[in-house]
Amino acid sequence: MSSNGYVLGHSQYGKAETHVVRVYRDDPEAPHDIVDYNVSVALSGDFADTHLTGDNAKVLTTDATKNTVYGFTKEHGEEARTPEGLALALANHFVDTVEHVHSARITVEAFGWRRSHDHPHAFVKAGDYVRTVSVRRSAEGVSVVSGVKNLTVLKTTDSEFHGFFQDRFTSLKPTDDRIMATAVRAQWAHEGTDVDWDASFAAVLDAMTGAFASSYSYALQQTVWEMGQAVLDAAPSVLDVRFSCPNVHHFVIDLSPYGIENNREVHHADDRPYGLIEATVKRSEDVDTTAAYDPGQAW
Amino acid sequence: MSSNGYVLGHSQYGKAETHVVRVYRDDPEAPHDIVDYNVSVALSGDFADTHLTGDNAKVLTTDATKNTVYGFTKEHGEEARTPEGLALALANHFVDTVEHVHSARITVEAFGWRRSHDHPHAFVKAGDYVRTVSVRRSAEGVSVVSGVKNLTVLKTTDSEFHGFFQDRFTSLKPTDDRIMATAVRAQWAHEGTDVDWDASFAAVLDAMTGAFASSYSYALQQTVWEMGQAVLDAAPSVLDVRFSCPNVHHFVIDLSPYGIENNREVHHADDRPYGLIEATVKRSEDVDTTAAYDPGQAW
Amino acid sequence: MSSNGYVLGHSQYGKAETHVVRVYRDDPEAPHDIVDYNVSVALSGDFADTHLTGDNAKVLTTDATKNTVYGFTKEHGEEARTPEGLALALANHFVDTVEHVHSARITVEAFGWRRSHDHPHAFVKAGDYVRTVSVRRSAEGVSVVSGVKNLTVLKTTDSEFHGFFQDRFTSLKPTDDRIMATAVRAQWAHEGTDVDWDASFAAVLDAMTGAFASSYSYALQQTVWEMGQAVLDAAPSVLDVRFSCPNVHHFVIDLSPYGIENNREVHHADDRPYGLIEATVKRSEDVDTTAAYDPGQAW
Amino acid sequence: MSSNGYVLGHSQYGKAETHVVRVYRDDPEAPHDIVDYNVSVALSGDFADTHLTGDNAKVLTTDATKNTVYGFTKEHGEEARTPEGLALALANHFVDTVEHVHSARITVEAFGWRRSHDHPHAFVKAGDYVRTVSVRRSAEGVSVVSGVKNLTVLKTTDSEFHGFFQDRFTSLKPTDDRIMATAVRAQWAHEGTDVDWDASFAAVLDAMTGAFASSYSYALQQTVWEMGQAVLDAAPSVLDVRFSCPNVHHFVIDLSPYGIENNREVHHADDRPYGLIEATVKRSEDVDTTAAYDPGQAW
Repeated sequence: MSSNGYVLGHSQYGKAETHVVRVYRDDPEAPHDIVDYNVSVALSGDFADTHLTGDNAKVLTTDATKNTVYGFTKEHGEEARTPEGLALALANHFVDTVEHVHSARITVEAFGWRRSHDHPHAFVKAGDYVRTVSVRRSAEGVSVVSGVKNLTVLKTTDSEFHGFFQDRFTSLKPTDDRIMATAVRAQWAHEGTDVDWDASFAAVLDAMTGAFASSYSYALQQTVWEMGQAVLDAAPSVLDVRFSCPNVHHFVIDLSPYGIENNREVHHADDRPYGLIEATVKRSEDVDTTAAYDPGQAW
Repeated sequence: MSSNGYVLGHSQYGKAETHVVRVYRDDPEAPHDIVDYNVSVALSGDFADTHLTGDNAKVLTTDATKNTVYGFTKEHGEEARTPEGLALALANHFVDTVEHVHSARITVEAFGWRRSHDHPHAFVKAGDYVRTVSVRRSAEGVSVVSGVKNLTVLKTTDSEFHGFFQDRFTSLKPTDDRIMATAVRAQWAHEGTDVDWDASFAAVLDAMTGAFASSYSYALQQTVWEMGQAVLDAAPSVLDVRFSCPNVHHFVIDLSPYGIENNREVHHADDRPYGLIEATVKRSEDVDTTAAYDPGQAW
Repeated sequence: MSSNGYVLGHSQYGKAETHVVRVYRDDPEAPHDIVDYNVSVALSGDFADTHLTGDNAKVLTTDATKNTVYGFTKEHGEEARTPEGLALALANHFVDTVEHVHSARITVEAFGWRRSHDHPHAFVKAGDYVRTVSVRRSAEGVSVVSGVKNLTVLKTTDSEFHGFFQDRFTSLKPTDDRIMATAVRAQWAHEGTDVDWDASFAAVLDAMTGAFASSYSYALQQTVWEMGQAVLDAAPSVLDVRFSCPNVHHFVIDLSPYGIENNREVHHADDRPYGLIEATVKRSEDVDTTAAYDPGQAW
Repeated sequence: MSSNGYVLGHSQYGKAETHVVRVYRDDPEAPHDIVDYNVSVALSGDFADTHLTGDNAKVLTTDATKNTVYGFTKEHGEEARTPEGLALALANHFVDTVEHVHSARITVEAFGWRRSHDHPHAFVKAGDYVRTVSVRRSAEGVSVVSGVKNLTVLKTTDSEFHGFFQDRFTSLKPTDDRIMATAVRAQWAHEGTDVDWDASFAAVLDAMTGAFASSYSYALQQTVWEMGQAVLDAAPSVLDVRFSCPNVHHFVIDLSPYGIENNREVHHADDRPYGLIEATVKRSEDVDTTAAYDPGQAW
């Protein structure tokens, strides 16, 4: 606190977006494996001094947090085969090992690579989605939130939207057949850490896309509910799943001025604006994962 | 709730990123004015049905929320001259006027334009920063959070960093003279709504950049504290200010292998990674603006 | 020309980036197909008046070029199943049908979609690369240039770089084992238009990635030459192939300050700078595809 | 050439996007100055071996080209105060000093900074545009092309568009009053190198924006012609200027369904598609600047 009564509120810091690529090549006979992570570290703790007076005695440099990320992908190599494993190792390290750190949030974007031509050393980057992880460790314990983003799905039919509320500004025409597309962004909080992360992620993705594909949709909101239920059905460790799904609008173009029929065939895919549907599906009423998702500083 | 016990948690929806440009040209004698806003609407309320059964009877279409944005920049033209004014008008409208809506969050990115050559009808886009607004209206009341992003500042000296904590992974060399640069992202919550928004924004920006320029820095954390205090000093309506400041690293290049001296002159500006310093400076201990900043669904 | 002697040089215009999605759903029994194209049209011709005097009598509006794109994805539906087919139909149309147009360049970015869960109406966007097409039609004829971009490939070994030229600024350490990664951007000009475009594209991609994977590399330049030869071997219609390959640097991190061995395992993937290798591989000395690639206005 | 008759065509290589920031601080009494450049180097020459056999003996590493950029911003400090000056020094160096290099193209993006609060050491990044330079040096000589991009200008009236060509796909409604906005991208080739680069750039920018503001427009094509003439009038060293101007569409929204009048006031600013107008204005008929603009490998 200062003489003017101003007070330092919540603060956190660390090195953001360290893009580390780790090759697994111990065994010269075996094909190489790679992991590709963009890792961000945010630490909170007894760090008021650096703000108030510039006294950095307690401050672990962000540079050191970066070096720790590099070091741990080697020293915790097996755990680092999954983004959850690496994030857990790092989060626990900062809180348990580094004096003055009380809590840590490690976020990871994991990029996939496919083997190219079955070659043991060659890969092609998989671009269908980005896998994400956010781990929070504090005195209360540790929580793992897995996720996915940039997963774009589309259905060409089996999607309707009508019977909606009418106000002064409502002019949308109801439809019983439309394209529905969204770039899924989802996160799901696990209970505990005894999870086969890769298998869990695969199961969630399969459930999510399967539900999107097979659900007859009367609203993107409804489809999101179906997707959420499917995720909970498929992944027993998951407590809840949060979706942020933009409704990427595909508008049927009226080609009649040009003498052409257009039976829901030709569409323009708009960049913006887009409907944005956000919802959480919880395993039960008493699930409270607020701390797991809390980024520390909300925007 | 469903038969499997799953429960719909928090949900919100609306049209995101409606890019509206409004020209003020009522008076043929006067120069034209323009405002340029990217507006997002997120509504919460009695909307479980659309998720659970696809019954949209209570759902105000996202299309209507978009039309409302357009309509209000005309009907609330004077208020819309500031992003706060437009956001307040919209937020209050959705909650007060539209049945089933219990709370609304309106976020705006406002792009500035300068007059070109003093011409009454010609403009050049101002790119030094993006002004932001986030208004939340609920049963409890309304809160306004103003902000700025992409405001990049740099000092070529008067910045040191040393005396920091040493752990196993600490190898950074201390420095008593370095470049410090950051792309400021900040938000500040106001008390009430009786504020001259433009004057307040100008005062905050001036205070923030002035503090950055004039503060001798022993850590970016310290500079952020100075900037926060300057903002509170300059803008009496502000309750607290949150910063998210990436330390955009400029590394001095060792040119000695090439027989060239480099006295803190030639640097490489790294894209990533970057240190990320986040902190809140509050006017007093009892300030609690959690609800004002809560985006509804945190990521 | 004007009184000041200034002269209008080359000019072209048209609607750029029309993002059209066309669903194939004629047969209610059959699974739907989709194509997803971002189409740009650039026309040249007898258009000096619109520049010199604002007389638009000869100007086909860019809006009409956009409507033509929509209309043709319906009317030329079978051709439009490939980006080359759609681009050819459009290019020939503008030159043959629209008075005053002398030449046309149609460029297309084609986004792939995979079927989701074998569902007849559901898809997941394929993100491994973007397929491209550039067709130029003029009085001299028509040329088709196919291409790919954002195809990121990586090898974890079988890549060396040494024995290079030494100048005053050379300090790079030679290596006999390094990661080599690149985001391939390539274009290849076909001879004629009697080509199975999809089969050709698949063959080129397979050849390119196969050569990258299997070639022992002494320089990215050498690998590009190998990739080019493989493309020419695999696709008989191709006259030449141009590559623009950034060498996406993966630097081995020195972990010895932290007591950790790093045997080419842990790397940092830099954003920038990056080496950029550009080269053309031609089927024979006399191949001249300059006009095919000429965008009209080079940057 | 290879046994299959394939031939290596044009090739070039070098380090792209080296982001260098140079501080001028020799005089402790004087305010600091900074320049901020993103520099790309592309060299051509006797480099076939590295492609054909992986023999790198003649290859100057891209790493060395990067180090040269750093070194030259120090050694050629005064020239480096302008992007043209730095680019010329680099281009001439590579061709005159480095064996095997026959031609070099140096491209630079220059970012501006304004002094903050008149502080001698503090700056705010200027975001209204990005200044560019492209220098080409070969046996034939050297050419300098200056430029600008991301310069967004808008007029709210004095823009009409009508009387255009009608074809089957023409449905655009003529207008005698519309917003016209564009994100100008322009390049202009100079004659010789005896130019005050900063003064020339300022004069060109002023002329360009002034012409956009003051010209009554019957088509963006016409405005571009006016802008081109103004540039040639203002900058005697300029031989020709090339424009690539997207017509950023601002559509008047029909608010009548909501009972609101909209007199060209409320618009939606579309992302895409956009009209794209490209044209060159030459000082005289015989101006031929093809080599100056040739990027070596056109896309």
